[in-house]
Amino acid sequence: MAEKLKIIPLGGLNEIGKNLTVYEYGNDIIIVDVGMGFPDDDMYGVDVVIPDVSYLIKHKDKIRGIFLTHGHEDHIGALPYVLRSFNAPIYATRMTLGLVRLKLEEHKLLDTTKLVTCEAGDIIQAGKFSVEFIHANHSIADAVSFAVKCPVGVVVHTGDFKIDPTPIKGKIMDLTRLGQLGKEGVLAMLADSTNVERPGHTRSERAVGASFDELFKGCKERIIVTTFASNVDRIQQIINVAARYGRKVAVTGRSMENSMRVATELGYTEIPQGILVDINHIKSLPREKICIITTGSQGEAMSALFRIAFSTHKQVDIQAGDRVIISASAIPGNENAVNNIINELYRKKAEVVSENAGALHVSGHACQDELKIIHALVRPKFFIPVHGEQRHLQTHARVAQEMGTPPENIIIGDVGRIIELTPHSAQLGGTVPSGRVFVDGYGVGDVGSVVLRDRRHLAQDGMIVVVVSLSGETGELVSGPDIITRGFVYVKESESLMEELREVALEALDACQSRGIGDWATIKSAMKGEMSRYLYKKTKRNPMILPVIMEV
Amino acid sequence: MAEKLKIIPLGGLNEIGKNLTVYEYGNDIIIVDVGMGFPDDDMYGVDVVIPDVSYLIKHKDKIRGIFLTHGHEDHIGALPYVLRSFNAPIYATRMTLGLVRLKLEEHKLLDTTKLVTCEAGDIIQAGKFSVEFIHANHSIADAVSFAVKCPVGVVVHTGDFKIDPTPIKGKIMDLTRLGQLGKEGVLAMLADSTNVERPGHTRSERAVGASFDELFKGCKERIIVTTFASNVDRIQQIINVAARYGRKVAVTGRSMENSMRVATELGYTEIPQGILVDINHIKSLPREKICIITTGSQGEAMSALFRIAFSTHKQVDIQAGDRVIISASAIPGNENAVNNIINELYRKKAEVVSENAGALHVSGHACQDELKIIHALVRPKFFIPVHGEQRHLQTHARVAQEMGTPPENIIIGDVGRIIELTPHSAQLGGTVPSGRVFVDGYGVGDVGSVVLRDRRHLAQDGMIVVVVSLSGETGELVSGPDIITRGFVYVKESESLMEELREVALEALDACQSRGIGDWATIKSAMKGEMSRYLYKKTKRNPMILPVIMEV
Repeated sequence: MAEKLKIIPLGGLNEIGKNLTVYEYGNDIIIVDVGMGFPDDDMYGVDVVIPDVSYLIKHKDKIRGIFLTHGHEDHIGALPYVLRSFNAPIYATRMTLGLVRLKLEEHKLLDTTKLVTCEAGDIIQAGKFSVEFIHANHSIADAVSFAVKCPVGVVVHTGDFKIDPTPIKGKIMDLTRLGQLGKEGVLAMLADSTNVERPGHTRSERAVGASFDELFKGCKERIIVTTFASNVDRIQQIINVAARYGRKVAVTGRSMENSMRVATELGYTEIPQGILVDINHIKSLPREKICIITTGSQGEAMSALFRIAFSTHKQVDIQAGDRVIISASAIPGNENAVNNIINELYRKKAEVVSENAGALHVSGHACQDELKIIHALVRPKFFIPVHGEQRHLQTHARVAQEMGTPPENIIIGDVGRIIELTPHSAQLGGTVPSGRVFVDGYGVGDVGSVVLRDRRHLAQDGMIVVVVSLSGETGELVSGPDIITRGFVYVKESESLMEELREVALEALDACQSRGIGDWATIKSAMKGEMSRYLYKKTKRNPMILPVIMEV
Repeated sequence: MAEKLKIIPLGGLNEIGKNLTVYEYGNDIIIVDVGMGFPDDDMYGVDVVIPDVSYLIKHKDKIRGIFLTHGHEDHIGALPYVLRSFNAPIYATRMTLGLVRLKLEEHKLLDTTKLVTCEAGDIIQAGKFSVEFIHANHSIADAVSFAVKCPVGVVVHTGDFKIDPTPIKGKIMDLTRLGQLGKEGVLAMLADSTNVERPGHTRSERAVGASFDELFKGCKERIIVTTFASNVDRIQQIINVAARYGRKVAVTGRSMENSMRVATELGYTEIPQGILVDINHIKSLPREKICIITTGSQGEAMSALFRIAFSTHKQVDIQAGDRVIISASAIPGNENAVNNIINELYRKKAEVVSENAGALHVSGHACQDELKIIHALVRPKFFIPVHGEQRHLQTHARVAQEMGTPPENIIIGDVGRIIELTPHSAQLGGTVPSGRVFVDGYGVGDVGSVVLRDRRHLAQDGMIVVVVSLSGETGELVSGPDIITRGFVYVKESESLMEELREVALEALDACQSRGIGDWATIKSAMKGEMSRYLYKKTKRNPMILPVIMEV
């Protein structure tokens, strides 16, 4: 039997983010994107979520290369973590590698990783795979799609994309090449489903420039603009409009400064001579000559805009009349944080212009009609919707059907589920280990479901520690019970409750001893059970109760 | 000096919800609305937030009545809590009192509270105040505005409202009466600011009926509709369209059942004979003859729709093809929960129709042009925007200016800040105790900022208890240090870390003793400090560390 092509998504299906797709053929594996995700609301204390790559670790000798579609965190963010476990050359475009380099430098992994700069049109051989870089449009410069070839056939992997006929820099997505591949015959396509629920077309990045122009024209106040740091084209547009109206530009916020540096070094932005000023020097300029570009579009606590609003920024304090432009939409979950900043800006009499007001932000993902164009050009035999939750995958499947793909040729996969392809068939196969690995501080994977369950429990009702000292010889009570609580109630106002709890613990202990029970686990369990019942009856709460017995 | 009218908002300004306004004149106080709010994301374990009413408790002898504009939780939800501290007759319309009655019954407060049924047009005397009930439109039946009169003048208090020329039941808001009052002279107006950022007019409730009709017409599948339980007019429309297309209606979810019962008993809904069926009996009906109305429009865990989607509902299990209509928009903060249900419905091949698809939900709050109508009719001398965050209050102030109110006659207040009115002036005065009281289980107010801070700390990094037994005579170590952790790391995989921690604690203890320090507070602080530093260096985390010393 001929070798099959296995496609194994380790992230990005039934979730947003954490994109990582494995292509395996015989003795060769290539990886497309190594992204991170953000924790859910109830994953307390987790900083970052990365894919479980134990399958890749097990087969690390087969890995021929890591290919990156673009430089967003949900496509490159897990690199520093997984590169501790295996290594392979990284192939990506200049802008993407610029951002990867920053990241690897920070994690001291730069020296041990081979980075290969590619550009649209390049074809990289990696074992029996060859990977062609195809120019795409997205909300970050230098994004690409891939045509992944192996003896089984050609797979088009779109990555995140939109079709922008008037991008700020560069050209429209390479529809021609996709059409050629379609004509030659494409076995399967994996395509971005993020915006599949939106009808029509995503507006061009250029539309935002027109909105900026209206907001800058005739404005006599200081202008502060916040947007995504990685959207270099957006930043270019802000600089262009500032130049047009004679404003100097100052940049604040670490990720914005980093992104600007990379983009400028690599030639992705064109900065008019003398327009940039140090944020420390803006005080000497008249208000109507200042434009500040800042981080904080997602309401991040401690971002530059947050500090500007709440008057804790060293160089910039919000002033009445300031025009603050929020050129971003809030990612689900961040609405309250963004709102919090907006309210503070209003309180200080700034003028806030946010997305309600017009085309201040456009998406980087293709809407339904753009997806249809791609389906019509690529005409894949098999279709695998990716980058989306179940609602997006299912909706994208319906769009594919409308475009002529038979339902039986559409595979809705899942993380860890192998998709097996032959030249004539595509089907779901077995599973590989997969899931979410939590990063908390320096720890990768040492926080798991038990720890998170405990954190949720602690968060909900706090905890009570009850300590007794028992004689090692006689088992008799020497000291205690002492009770310590945190996150439960104001102890000062609940002294009588604490006294009652001590009584309950003591009674449970006495009851055990009078029945001759000397086993500590049983005594602990009895104390915990009685205290828990008592507390629930009295307060309708379930704090975590930790009994401790000291042998003295 | 003549007596002033004091208006004291104890909730509803710079926040959404928890509406409560105090009107005080001489020896008389009346209260308008007694609402609850929901906790912020980081108020772990808090069920409900209510206004601090210590000012009212202090002056309870002055309270002449509680007046309710309508029956939503953010206007009546705190009643059961505050009625434990003071009592006064409650004046409200029939529907509002129906919902209040349910609530008081549950809290065993019904017998001790005087409820007075009023209707639009009624004027209630309460001390030197008289309060006129004025018919308003809103997303719940029987909403009213008030004209509050006292010797200082007339204050119009709109409550939540919209102007609906084609409501499902009853008439358009009583603009005539508001206009009359305006002609006679209104001293001040407090008006709803919720939707002030939206231009134009809110659509009529009737628009939703047309959308339902299209979704029911010709549908051969089972239809499941979720909406807000309190929106009786919406439910009436669902029943109407079900009747039109020959479907039986079953209701599931406790709050939906309660709301239906109250509305039906009081005659707010008209249920065609024989259309309602028990949810237990729907299995005997053909799919195209069923319409299920359910709770869960906000994604609430354990709501009926949640259980239907996740196959834990006793009577209804989602089936492929089911058409699920979500007739509500997600309240900020609930997006992820709603999304979670939608994904599960898609996974089970149901068809989900949500607000993206058309007029499946309309707001109950006036947009900018409706607010302008009210300003134009009432023409208050002084204007006080209420029911909104700072962004809404400021924007409403600008709208009032556009409508001719001079800026110096617009008061942006705050919770707890007294607004003092004479016939010729309005100004901010002093403050009264105010703020948010947290309800957690049976506890009202026993969870405060310290407890919440501890819960956040515990949630973030978990905790470590370190226990030592010291001899009461010599101060020498008898037993320990024992270390217990929860929510920090998998202990099994971190045994060496635990061993190191024990060492660090022991060294700190030894260091104290060798320096002759016998004071327990100092010893605890030393152990905590050393362990904390060690852990942060090693893991970049800051778990809560609780040192316990037992004297034996």
